[in-house]
Amino acid sequence: MIRAGIIGASGFTGGELIRLVSRHPELELTFLGGNSSAGKRPAQLHPGLRTDLGLAIEPVTADAVAERCDVVFLATPAPVSAELAVLLADRVPCVIDLSGAFRIRTPELHERWYPKAERRAELADRFVYGVPELVGDQLVGAPLISVPGCYATAITLGLAPLTLGLGLDLRTVVVDGKSGSSGGGLHLRTADLHPLRHGAIAPYAPTGHRHAAEVGDFLKRGRRGTIGSLTMSAYGVSHVRGLLASAYVFTDDAVDGRELQRAYLRFYKGHHFVRVRRHTETLIPVPDPQAVLGSNFCDVTVLRDDERDAGGRIVVLAALDNLVKGAAGQAVQAMNKRFALPEETGLTMQPVMPA
Amino acid sequence: MIRAGIIGASGFTGGELIRLVSRHPELELTFLGGNSSAGKRPAQLHPGLRTDLGLAIEPVTADAVAERCDVVFLATPAPVSAELAVLLADRVPCVIDLSGAFRIRTPELHERWYPKAERRAELADRFVYGVPELVGDQLVGAPLISVPGCYATAITLGLAPLTLGLGLDLRTVVVDGKSGSSGGGLHLRTADLHPLRHGAIAPYAPTGHRHAAEVGDFLKRGRRGTIGSLTMSAYGVSHVRGLLASAYVFTDDAVDGRELQRAYLRFYKGHHFVRVRRHTETLIPVPDPQAVLGSNFCDVTVLRDDERDAGGRIVVLAALDNLVKGAAGQAVQAMNKRFALPEETGLTMQPVMPA
Amino acid sequence: MIRAGIIGASGFTGGELIRLVSRHPELELTFLGGNSSAGKRPAQLHPGLRTDLGLAIEPVTADAVAERCDVVFLATPAPVSAELAVLLADRVPCVIDLSGAFRIRTPELHERWYPKAERRAELADRFVYGVPELVGDQLVGAPLISVPGCYATAITLGLAPLTLGLGLDLRTVVVDGKSGSSGGGLHLRTADLHPLRHGAIAPYAPTGHRHAAEVGDFLKRGRRGTIGSLTMSAYGVSHVRGLLASAYVFTDDAVDGRELQRAYLRFYKGHHFVRVRRHTETLIPVPDPQAVLGSNFCDVTVLRDDERDAGGRIVVLAALDNLVKGAAGQAVQAMNKRFALPEETGLTMQPVMPA
Amino acid sequence: MIRAGIIGASGFTGGELIRLVSRHPELELTFLGGNSSAGKRPAQLHPGLRTDLGLAIEPVTADAVAERCDVVFLATPAPVSAELAVLLADRVPCVIDLSGAFRIRTPELHERWYPKAERRAELADRFVYGVPELVGDQLVGAPLISVPGCYATAITLGLAPLTLGLGLDLRTVVVDGKSGSSGGGLHLRTADLHPLRHGAIAPYAPTGHRHAAEVGDFLKRGRRGTIGSLTMSAYGVSHVRGLLASAYVFTDDAVDGRELQRAYLRFYKGHHFVRVRRHTETLIPVPDPQAVLGSNFCDVTVLRDDERDAGGRIVVLAALDNLVKGAAGQAVQAMNKRFALPEETGLTMQPVMPA
Repeated sequence: MIRAGIIGASGFTGGELIRLVSRHPELELTFLGGNSSAGKRPAQLHPGLRTDLGLAIEPVTADAVAERCDVVFLATPAPVSAELAVLLADRVPCVIDLSGAFRIRTPELHERWYPKAERRAELADRFVYGVPELVGDQLVGAPLISVPGCYATAITLGLAPLTLGLGLDLRTVVVDGKSGSSGGGLHLRTADLHPLRHGAIAPYAPTGHRHAAEVGDFLKRGRRGTIGSLTMSAYGVSHVRGLLASAYVFTDDAVDGRELQRAYLRFYKGHHFVRVRRHTETLIPVPDPQAVLGSNFCDVTVLRDDERDAGGRIVVLAALDNLVKGAAGQAVQAMNKRFALPEETGLTMQPVMPA
Repeated sequence: MIRAGIIGASGFTGGELIRLVSRHPELELTFLGGNSSAGKRPAQLHPGLRTDLGLAIEPVTADAVAERCDVVFLATPAPVSAELAVLLADRVPCVIDLSGAFRIRTPELHERWYPKAERRAELADRFVYGVPELVGDQLVGAPLISVPGCYATAITLGLAPLTLGLGLDLRTVVVDGKSGSSGGGLHLRTADLHPLRHGAIAPYAPTGHRHAAEVGDFLKRGRRGTIGSLTMSAYGVSHVRGLLASAYVFTDDAVDGRELQRAYLRFYKGHHFVRVRRHTETLIPVPDPQAVLGSNFCDVTVLRDDERDAGGRIVVLAALDNLVKGAAGQAVQAMNKRFALPEETGLTMQPVMPA
Repeated sequence: MIRAGIIGASGFTGGELIRLVSRHPELELTFLGGNSSAGKRPAQLHPGLRTDLGLAIEPVTADAVAERCDVVFLATPAPVSAELAVLLADRVPCVIDLSGAFRIRTPELHERWYPKAERRAELADRFVYGVPELVGDQLVGAPLISVPGCYATAITLGLAPLTLGLGLDLRTVVVDGKSGSSGGGLHLRTADLHPLRHGAIAPYAPTGHRHAAEVGDFLKRGRRGTIGSLTMSAYGVSHVRGLLASAYVFTDDAVDGRELQRAYLRFYKGHHFVRVRRHTETLIPVPDPQAVLGSNFCDVTVLRDDERDAGGRIVVLAALDNLVKGAAGQAVQAMNKRFALPEETGLTMQPVMPA
Repeated sequence: MIRAGIIGASGFTGGELIRLVSRHPELELTFLGGNSSAGKRPAQLHPGLRTDLGLAIEPVTADAVAERCDVVFLATPAPVSAELAVLLADRVPCVIDLSGAFRIRTPELHERWYPKAERRAELADRFVYGVPELVGDQLVGAPLISVPGCYATAITLGLAPLTLGLGLDLRTVVVDGKSGSSGGGLHLRTADLHPLRHGAIAPYAPTGHRHAAEVGDFLKRGRRGTIGSLTMSAYGVSHVRGLLASAYVFTDDAVDGRELQRAYLRFYKGHHFVRVRRHTETLIPVPDPQAVLGSNFCDVTVLRDDERDAGGRIVVLAALDNLVKGAAGQAVQAMNKRFALPEETGLTMQPVMPA
């Protein structure tokens, strides 16, 4: 058994990690860390969790983690992760960070979006960006893994077949993101109270979202395709879990709807967790985050806008559960690859729908 | 008192018209028409309505309408409206159609989007497009009024200050629309059942939306500004009433954020129902349809995306209640202008929030 | 015009009072008081409100209120109301308190449920309990009015025809209350964050609810009928506005379903705001709070449980909008009676449905 | 591997069975039956399901089922189940019916509540009532199992410690049930459309619910305790999955809150899926169905109402996921016992929360 620790156990991502790790057949949960919640049992903070998990949350010390963990998941804010990574790198065989501390490689971009997460360049460079579908074998044996943001995962998986696959030059990409309230975490903010969030379409980030920077930073490093302007606007809508990212793509390269569909199927062949779906294949239009709820799937649909005056727009839609494929599930998937386990291990749950 | 009739009384728009007309100080509700629901009382179909309205729904005959109405609202499907308009034009002093039958003036575009609504060109040309804020005095005394679609209203009000106001040339406009389930009307469709619609982000129209065609058709007739490609994608989200339209605009004309804000304030000065709002002026981000619920307001925000690589994108956000400013309220507002009443008459209700 | 002030303008009830008072044809809004929110404009705190109201929120002083108001609404916590009432009684022609400070007349019961709201007995005794439908002419000219709690209003209006009307002896009454999240007010509590409240059925008060005490205190003072055990459990469900109170009544008095229905209709004859409705009279089962949203209606249904072994149970259901008939609307209705205005003045809005 | 078939694959319960059975380590899904949906693949009807399940839905014939299944789950309406049971009993080693056809043993009660499900008495008597926690070893080897209704499961598990455990005589039991919209199944009913169901508190069964009859029928057969009047009222609230049943119990037997808590813990000791929880043990009040979403848990809380005039009321609250512990999960749990597998096999998923 691989001994696993989770730091930042009180937040939504921490709770989701406990949910997944505690049922993973190859993992043993050996450490739960959290400073503000030390002494509490997981089910007090996460009312759904099994009440018989056996572990209580402890204050974090590098020694305890190093002693008791083969892998540690950091579900901490970026500045905390930046500090913990220094303490734990090379003392724990694998550190998997779920914050934004190590997602953006380009220093100036990192500084622009995560000014409070100070990090050492040589440490940052060692982190593998953990989208298992796109980084090949880099994760095998990797000691340091940075899990992408929830939106970044959806957008990157949505656009990669266009750039990395087809090698298109995407002149303009406009991303419109719609997510549920769990994306905001468990913080006391007036605007997140139920009476003010229910029924809302909240334009919380109409311009400038750091996940867009993250996507650009990653995809532009790819060997094929280019991206010109990539902008994003993000909205909170009236549910809790799951997001849909829409990317409206303008390219001068000619490619029709059928080719796009085939290219996407080809690109994700053999990748269990990315489902390329036709828009009308079920009794509801897809992709829709309700069809991936609680699971590690990312559903992707690609369409060509053939309306007159559409300018040849390509519409890419990607839906995922922000706490699973957008966070804890993807972290476990990356860890599976790190330890050479089958990618689906511990992630076989199917979506809970209707819910 | 102006004698008012409503045809199509059983749908959501019909119900909303009853709600507004029955409380309008200058209107007397004299006719409720509906074929499938004939014989029923309004409160049976619309459980919230006053139970003492006095009128029952009757089968529709042109004679009855002509005899008893000074104004008639058609809350009927486009093909039915097209037929009724022929029968009622010139027999009733004012016919106000809330369907799409007479919204698009260009014949080919109409044919493309409303193939089942056959109409006579000479009748179609007489309809005034009823956005009161944008058509000046054309509504005064108008015998035939076509009320814009809900999305079309939001987008048109959002873009007009750029084209009609500033005279900009908008190279590319990408519209992303998010609306509640009431927009789909009261039809039995599996995908609209609560268990499948709750929690959804349903990409029901990822490419090609007829309201986009309507906006283009109207704005391109304006004397100032141009629009190149205008595309739209529409999504159903997990609430009932209200929509937010986001327009992402790319233009080569230089204009900064302050100028935009001033231009919008200037453009809508004196127009009570359009509120130009700063994004952060309240305890929730605006515009948000929850802040206009049940009212005739349309909240509009304009922003310049100053991120590097943003390509000078302008973000325009417009929120309204699809059943009020997007349908019944706008119809009453247009009628007020038609009969030279103050525009706010009968429309003074303020938003119901939180809800 | 009657000059009206509102103290506690930043909460949900305060916002709702502003919504109603600012449109009331006989009221002029002359004072908005609030200490923590002093200096803000109403639309900053209540994003839906008209942005052109003209008044800003001011710190509260008794002199200012006395000078500028003919009536003042206290939308303050009970302890604050208890203090303000002392300062304002006899200096303002009418003080209307919406807190629990003066609802329960019996001193021991008051002390049990509102220990922090210290009040003088002689002042407390002068307050009229403001359910306009049940207190006859006591409100006319009343200088001090206490507005019942939201649940208390629903339950009292639901049970009164049985006790005050039919004179029944109700051996056992079990109340089960279900309400939306706006009932909890605008406070930062973790359990009220959207991710934890959405989808919840939260048993927040499984035993012991002060509104039950309030109902007993009022109804037991009535001249007819008796109530033995009256218990209550209250739940928060997954919407924002509106509540349904179910009262399960066991009595040894014989009365059948028809008689009950007739008795309720008779009891509320001429009372516009209480609608006695048959369970199946519309396309949804009623009463349902969605059918009264935003309005001052209270919908009431009474049924006899004729199942074998049902013990002759009577089921009484009452639905209302907790911020309108359960708070601000009822306060305005009481004020209308106080100043001898028609009861419906300023309260003619119809429910917003669907929403 | 045990070969399993599912009939009625197109409904919510059918979909949930596919979700659970397809991941059960000891089951092989060998037959999917459905007449209206024959030819479709599961993921077309249940958009969340894995798209690679391999099986399509087939028309139902007894021969095919008998040949290919060791166990068959009937997720069919009661009249269909009654017919299928005749055809399949003794031809398939285990028939598990999830409808109401065989839940109520007393013939007159069955006839009262399921008049359309005609059944043979000798067949009905052979069905074991499948609440695994309450029927001891009766399920081991049972050829015919009837899975209780969702509400019946919650109420029975909630009350059993009082009657079967403590042997109390419950004079009066009033049950108030609150459930999400998935309980109504996937049928096209106007009242179940999203715009009319969202935000509702729908009193759909104010008197007379067949699950109450089912509970009485089962518990009154127990050797200890008695139940006098047991009534129920049921409400649909504004979420999709999960229910909370509240039982308000009046008894003349003396028992205090501590004794109750201890008795419940003792009664369910060793029963993994029933969690006896204190009301305030987590950051939200429990039991709340959101804390069991997607899992097979039933959370139970018991409280004594010590308010004056409460008449010694006992409040029992039970929450479960109506599609899991209230249907498909309990069916699998019963099947595990039938085939002498550990009870948790294939049911180890933890609740998905927040959602």
